[in-house]
Amino acid sequence: MSPVVAFQGIPGANSEIAIRQHFGGPVDVYPCHDLNELFNALQTNKATSAMLPVENALAGSVNGAYELLMDYDFVVQAEVILHVHHALVVLPGTTMQDIKFVRSHPQALAQCDRFLKRHSFTPVPWHDTAGASLDLAKDKEPHTAALSSTLAAQMYELEVLATEVEDVAFNYTRFFLLGHEEPARAECSKTSLIFATRHRPSALYDCLGEFATRGINLTKIESRPRRNRPWEPVFFLDFEGHWQDEPCKEALIRLVQKASFVKMLGSYPAAKTESVGI
Amino acid sequence: MSPVVAFQGIPGANSEIAIRQHFGGPVDVYPCHDLNELFNALQTNKATSAMLPVENALAGSVNGAYELLMDYDFVVQAEVILHVHHALVVLPGTTMQDIKFVRSHPQALAQCDRFLKRHSFTPVPWHDTAGASLDLAKDKEPHTAALSSTLAAQMYELEVLATEVEDVAFNYTRFFLLGHEEPARAECSKTSLIFATRHRPSALYDCLGEFATRGINLTKIESRPRRNRPWEPVFFLDFEGHWQDEPCKEALIRLVQKASFVKMLGSYPAAKTESVGI
Repeated sequence: MSPVVAFQGIPGANSEIAIRQHFGGPVDVYPCHDLNELFNALQTNKATSAMLPVENALAGSVNGAYELLMDYDFVVQAEVILHVHHALVVLPGTTMQDIKFVRSHPQALAQCDRFLKRHSFTPVPWHDTAGASLDLAKDKEPHTAALSSTLAAQMYELEVLATEVEDVAFNYTRFFLLGHEEPARAECSKTSLIFATRHRPSALYDCLGEFATRGINLTKIESRPRRNRPWEPVFFLDFEGHWQDEPCKEALIRLVQKASFVKMLGSYPAAKTESVGI
Repeated sequence: MSPVVAFQGIPGANSEIAIRQHFGGPVDVYPCHDLNELFNALQTNKATSAMLPVENALAGSVNGAYELLMDYDFVVQAEVILHVHHALVVLPGTTMQDIKFVRSHPQALAQCDRFLKRHSFTPVPWHDTAGASLDLAKDKEPHTAALSSTLAAQMYELEVLATEVEDVAFNYTRFFLLGHEEPARAECSKTSLIFATRHRPSALYDCLGEFATRGINLTKIESRPRRNRPWEPVFFLDFEGHWQDEPCKEALIRLVQKASFVKMLGSYPAAKTESVGI
């Protein structure tokens, strides 16, 4: 079966760019309206894998993604780190001087605020970035541009007038590629899990000690309130290593004894970044 | 000088509701276009304090808020926890049957997705929730409603047709009240700080040990990539206690020795919630 990768958004969305970056060639994609539909597509085999955004350098962790990871039993097959850019996109023939209005998601508009002000463009909020391109291609509104990806521009036969118009260069989104099967073991692995501690003093510290004393580097730790139990925390934890590595295996076994629950998300090849241990 | 509290957004925004919840009576407010302006208003004494959103139960930490906390030297005077609701708001005389379109920020529209679908209302993205009410009061667009706070409805003389129309009940935002002076010491205090570790194995674990071994409960820990140094983490940490408590003082002194930097945000009265130690 050739791979079909689900993503949230319409064609040209950042999640689709992450898919193309990861697979590096033609791949069948399955666009979903929301994250619930994405998990459902994978569950019902409409897709063979799914590209799930889990955190953004500017906006933080995607909490809804972690809640769905809790509810389903998929494994993380890879992590993908995408450098997010916004392009100024117009109907063919439109010039910079013609533009009065610029459509995009409020977050993208905010990220390009200085650019918009410099050109005296009026920002117009839109459902999403790729949707701003799609709708512009359809309704052909004059004096109007969109902030979208260059992929969306290509797809909807629009012209790119300017690339990388964002004020803030440091805008990365991290994705998990989800599937049913464990991936082949790579040279550099990372492991992700969700756990909750028992109500005891130093409970978190005790749990982290299982990793620290075995020299296992953590690369992410985050406490989040537990759904329906306000302010009772769960932890999102990533560490370097594979669950089959002897020290990791040992730490995980101990963690399972100490935690009130552990939900393994999986071990997967680490993306090549300047990640450091914490 | 009577208090003037800065907030980000237009009158009726959730941050203004947090101010009114905290002060419990009439108070002068100073609306700001963005978080930069908010910090600047406090710095230049246009405001005596500022209500800053720092995390949301659904969307996670407000990363931009923490970056500005790093850049300035204000102290946290209180934490405020606001239960966020969305109301369906219309021009006086409009009935449920008249409504075809509903304006709001895409995040609010998504949080009320089931309600909108049940009534076959078409969602229309808008810059922000309070702005959807303000603009509706101005442009009087027929067949149109807004998802806003009831405070925004009152302010812009609109009618509330339905309250708490959100699909997800668990939507809290946590704010810091920022100012220049340390607050009076309360019976139950919390302390917030930002720190980075040195590059050493188990660096985070060592730092947390200073708290664990002294029986100090952590209530939040989060690793975030450091701005301009991708994937090099800083930590947002909250714990129970006041920096003048002997064990906290001792733990902080040790942390300062071990960390590559520590930025104290302050000790302040804890909001009354079912917060538990981690």
